[in-house]
Amino acid sequence: MPGYQLTRDDHLKRLRRIEGQVRGLQAMIESDKYCIDVLTQIASVTKALQGVGLGLLDEHIRHCVREAAETDEHEGDAKVEEAVAAVARLLKS
Amino acid sequence: MPGYQLTRDDHLKRLRRIEGQVRGLQAMIESDKYCIDVLTQIASVTKALQGVGLGLLDEHIRHCVREAAETDEHEGDAKVEEAVAAVARLLKS
Amino acid sequence: MPGYQLTRDDHLKRLRRIEGQVRGLQAMIESDKYCIDVLTQIASVTKALQGVGLGLLDEHIRHCVREAAETDEHEGDAKVEEAVAAVARLLKS
Amino acid sequence: MPGYQLTRDDHLKRLRRIEGQVRGLQAMIESDKYCIDVLTQIASVTKALQGVGLGLLDEHIRHCVREAAETDEHEGDAKVEEAVAAVARLLKS
Repeated sequence: MPGYQLTRDDHLKRLRRIEGQVRGLQAMIESDKYCIDVLTQIASVTKALQGVGLGLLDEHIRHCVREAAETDEHEGDAKVEEAVAAVARLLKS
Repeated sequence: MPGYQLTRDDHLKRLRRIEGQVRGLQAMIESDKYCIDVLTQIASVTKALQGVGLGLLDEHIRHCVREAAETDEHEGDAKVEEAVAAVARLLKS
Repeated sequence: MPGYQLTRDDHLKRLRRIEGQVRGLQAMIESDKYCIDVLTQIASVTKALQGVGLGLLDEHIRHCVREAAETDEHEGDAKVEEAVAAVARLLKS
Repeated sequence: MPGYQLTRDDHLKRLRRIEGQVRGLQAMIESDKYCIDVLTQIASVTKALQGVGLGLLDEHIRHCVREAAETDEHEGDAKVEEAVAAVARLLKS
């Protein structure tokens, strides 16, 4: 069971809001909104997505990484590497 | 008329795909997918959104910034500042 | 002559400050400062570097992209593509 | 003692190289190098800095976060929050 169990509803609520924002972006393009306003909204949706990512990362370190470390040191190290690689992907996106 | 007129369909197609990816993220959370896999997918959606942003920026500079510069130097300068401020918001998101 | 001629001294001053901050990071590591404090300082240096980049981008669009557009439409288009590709590299870094 | 003890020399070596790159940026500006080439180099220095940050984050989670978790659960939670806040600052920079 993944570490985000407890706040699962919170993640889903945020992702539904983000889905609505992406539909809003389509409506902006369809009604010829000014490019800069669309860009500002894209920055806002990106930030919201990163927020969900940071929430998941928090829970992942809090639960999965720790549990792995308690069971087996090598397993714990592997989990840390995996989490940092995920952060690297977020930074590059 | 905004500068992205010509590639409007392309932007809409990409945004519909992104909307589907955000729904996919909800499904991943609902079916308890592994946190790291959700994070990888979030990085991918963020990258896709930035891609739409870069496309809009390209057209904005190509059309709006240039047109403004041709009409009036001060108007042109204001457009450049506005575009760079939009890039700054993308960088911080 | 590049577009940043006028604010060249400002860029140099900022880069010298950034050089000092990077030396400060070395001193933090040498004196075993707390990891999180080093990370906070890294975020601050990165932001300062992006600031120089945004300044250069502003002048580049203001001068080089515009001049190219005035001389030749194809040349102007090539400059826009080049500038947007540079923004894409900043976003991924 | 911070978690990055073991790879301290590696961090210092990287930071000295980054310091040299920042001096190289100054030389580029002083010799009127093309704006886009300076921007490309800025993206490269930023990436190198983020690399040091990711290395520190890896060691921080591996050592400090884990140790705190083993001593005291609340202390462990506080360390996770602190680390995720540091990642958030990197993402916004």
